[in-house]
Amino acid sequence: MNDKIKLDISGALQAAAWVEGEIESNRSDLAAAAQAVDAKRKEGLLGFFDLPFNKEGAAAIKQTAEYIKGNFKNLVVIGIGGSALGNRMLHNALNHPRYNELPAGKRKGCPRVYVLDSIDADYLKGLLDVLDLKETAFNVITKSGGTVETMANFFVLKDMLKREVGPNRAAESIIATTDASRGVLLEIARQEGYRLFHIPGNVGGRYSVLSAVGLLSAAVSGIDIDELLSGAETAVKDCSAHDPYKNPALMGAALHYIAYQRGKSISVVMPYSDALDYFGDWYCQLWAESLGKTKHVNGTAVPVGQTPLKAIGARDQHSLLQLFLDGPDDKIFTLLRVEKRQNSFIIPPPDGAGNELQYLGGSTLEKLLASELEATESVLAKRGRMCLRISLPTVSPYTMGQLIFFYMLMTAYMGELMGINAFDQPAVEEGKRITYRLMGRPDY
Amino acid sequence: MNDKIKLDISGALQAAAWVEGEIESNRSDLAAAAQAVDAKRKEGLLGFFDLPFNKEGAAAIKQTAEYIKGNFKNLVVIGIGGSALGNRMLHNALNHPRYNELPAGKRKGCPRVYVLDSIDADYLKGLLDVLDLKETAFNVITKSGGTVETMANFFVLKDMLKREVGPNRAAESIIATTDASRGVLLEIARQEGYRLFHIPGNVGGRYSVLSAVGLLSAAVSGIDIDELLSGAETAVKDCSAHDPYKNPALMGAALHYIAYQRGKSISVVMPYSDALDYFGDWYCQLWAESLGKTKHVNGTAVPVGQTPLKAIGARDQHSLLQLFLDGPDDKIFTLLRVEKRQNSFIIPPPDGAGNELQYLGGSTLEKLLASELEATESVLAKRGRMCLRISLPTVSPYTMGQLIFFYMLMTAYMGELMGINAFDQPAVEEGKRITYRLMGRPDY
Repeated sequence: MNDKIKLDISGALQAAAWVEGEIESNRSDLAAAAQAVDAKRKEGLLGFFDLPFNKEGAAAIKQTAEYIKGNFKNLVVIGIGGSALGNRMLHNALNHPRYNELPAGKRKGCPRVYVLDSIDADYLKGLLDVLDLKETAFNVITKSGGTVETMANFFVLKDMLKREVGPNRAAESIIATTDASRGVLLEIARQEGYRLFHIPGNVGGRYSVLSAVGLLSAAVSGIDIDELLSGAETAVKDCSAHDPYKNPALMGAALHYIAYQRGKSISVVMPYSDALDYFGDWYCQLWAESLGKTKHVNGTAVPVGQTPLKAIGARDQHSLLQLFLDGPDDKIFTLLRVEKRQNSFIIPPPDGAGNELQYLGGSTLEKLLASELEATESVLAKRGRMCLRISLPTVSPYTMGQLIFFYMLMTAYMGELMGINAFDQPAVEEGKRITYRLMGRPDY
Repeated sequence: MNDKIKLDISGALQAAAWVEGEIESNRSDLAAAAQAVDAKRKEGLLGFFDLPFNKEGAAAIKQTAEYIKGNFKNLVVIGIGGSALGNRMLHNALNHPRYNELPAGKRKGCPRVYVLDSIDADYLKGLLDVLDLKETAFNVITKSGGTVETMANFFVLKDMLKREVGPNRAAESIIATTDASRGVLLEIARQEGYRLFHIPGNVGGRYSVLSAVGLLSAAVSGIDIDELLSGAETAVKDCSAHDPYKNPALMGAALHYIAYQRGKSISVVMPYSDALDYFGDWYCQLWAESLGKTKHVNGTAVPVGQTPLKAIGARDQHSLLQLFLDGPDDKIFTLLRVEKRQNSFIIPPPDGAGNELQYLGGSTLEKLLASELEATESVLAKRGRMCLRISLPTVSPYTMGQLIFFYMLMTAYMGELMGINAFDQPAVEEGKRITYRLMGRPDY
């Protein structure tokens, strides 16, 4: 297929003379990072590498998706963090921009899809106001089976559902996605007889979107999950070399690492596409939670991490760009460009307008957006700011599969380069313990 | 009224012993900053101070809102940056969480409200798919009258509308909000006879939400704009002293300035409320575009600015918190707490669940969310991270008015402390020129 995403680093090379030299001088570290990731993959520690090849899993997901499509008008995903952000990303990228507002006929009869990742009572009430529980399926997702926000929402909704439709229909309306061998959700699911999907033990939450976690709700809304996996498979193949010039994920990590070493403490992802808005949020979790760590070097604690920031073009040119250009040189930028959209609008001649805007007449919104992306790249380069470009021929399941895998692998490489574990999240445990105590959990 | 928002700085004082001392040692600079803002206000440079008192303006806005309510089922705001973010913020905060999805009866007959701040053709097509142009009013907002994204969208939609409903009804469907004396939009509006609102010359885009820019679409959806202005008026009064302990906006600026001086290059705003999600985006523009500047000190260019970052509690505890806690100490945090929500949900006893989650039974979602906020404050403080808290008794027009004005004034103070102009945006002009050139504008 020609539908391959492409990393273009010319802007970064142009911005500063030292970039190319630093790639060279880091070559052995880069090869070592690639080797370390390969080794962890072989040891079976990096389950996200296997997901694209799990055809059997995809078939089971599609079967359950058909069941949901045939029996319900709404699907609510109950999850948080890695059990919600990937779902949002896929829907935002691959469904109609106002999918839930469309009449059923324009959704090919597929259910509406909502993601409940908030324990704000007003948010939940707002959701209930637009749902008929009798026609709603729930996919509750927590890897540990005990995520407190997810389970609290689940207990509230399960109780309502039981009272509304009775325990049998309730059990048929709930699909649980959790660990295969442990946890409260697993226990309840077995006891009450829910349909059940498992998250492999070696796939962390933020690396799980290509498992049942992200794929079920995608399939329910008609997204071609085989194409998603096929895109990821392509990226696995295209990102296997140990030479950064032959492995774009390794090159992406190289540039972020070099930038980080030079004091770029912030990594800005800026899609020029509304369909990639939630890709930005998914990226923020992936980058922040994987790389924000405290290292222990010779007995000294060294906090490391690069803060991710999402911006949307052209919108945020009118919000954040002033800071990006005139503010501190503490950022590396990745602009995402979509080469072809599904729609096109010609801008009519602005009759009645003065000369100032006449030039717009006859052009298109797409050309304007593409020109703004180029202008942003150009002004960033002029100020010596490092800027990468990722081009997607279109936003499709196949290109999204590539993009997702590319980013997960780049994150894994970056973890190796920074000398930290990109797959745990030790700091958040402490806050959880305090919450338990405040909530009166007996053992805290 | 007792419905006052409150700034609590005890977490910041607790985090580090030097904080209190630095407030003291900056007292004269803080007083000077307050004085400078007062002086600019007296000179008539800071129009945002006058907006809360413009009762006549509010009356005219309400009148037009009634006209729109009586004649249309949808209102589309066409704007970008400061002409869109404030509108989104008010709707998110003060309307039903799924306002546009509700049937008309549950919206008290008020029109649906959409904000078009994207030139992505797929986004526009998505919007058109859920609108009947015959029943849709448009509020096109650009202060200069020539913002290219806004005007491109406007030309596309105006042309469609004319073809759909004829030129007369089209002119009756369009409300223009722009400068009183210049610009392409003003020219077209006069020529075609649109209803017209003016943005005062001394009110910049990101300080304009309490003008017709933000108030018209708010009033159309039934938000009490008098209460909004009354809240802002309260904040004007409560934030007038030159002593930081008697002026919370000055104290907020003091703490952000002290943090910035100590290398906290990122300012995180983290509402524990979904209703304040877009407040976060509005804040990001305000902080980034106002304070991200290049200073010239003795002939040397010094780039300054603090990068704003939005996080949502509890959601982003499962995304960004790991980095906040274990990563570099380069951030100052402001947590927003809502004391009372409109709804409440009791968590039922998790029958069938093991002991691990039994403690949730009988508690409420609100208590859980409040406990998580406290836990986050507590772990941040333990790691010496500066953390402020702003409490809102409820999310209402009156408290939002206070919050908005508090933030605008804090930004103005911060600009004075940093020694920069918080009211211009010089850097974005260059990108605009390149865009013009790429689009073939003759004079570029």
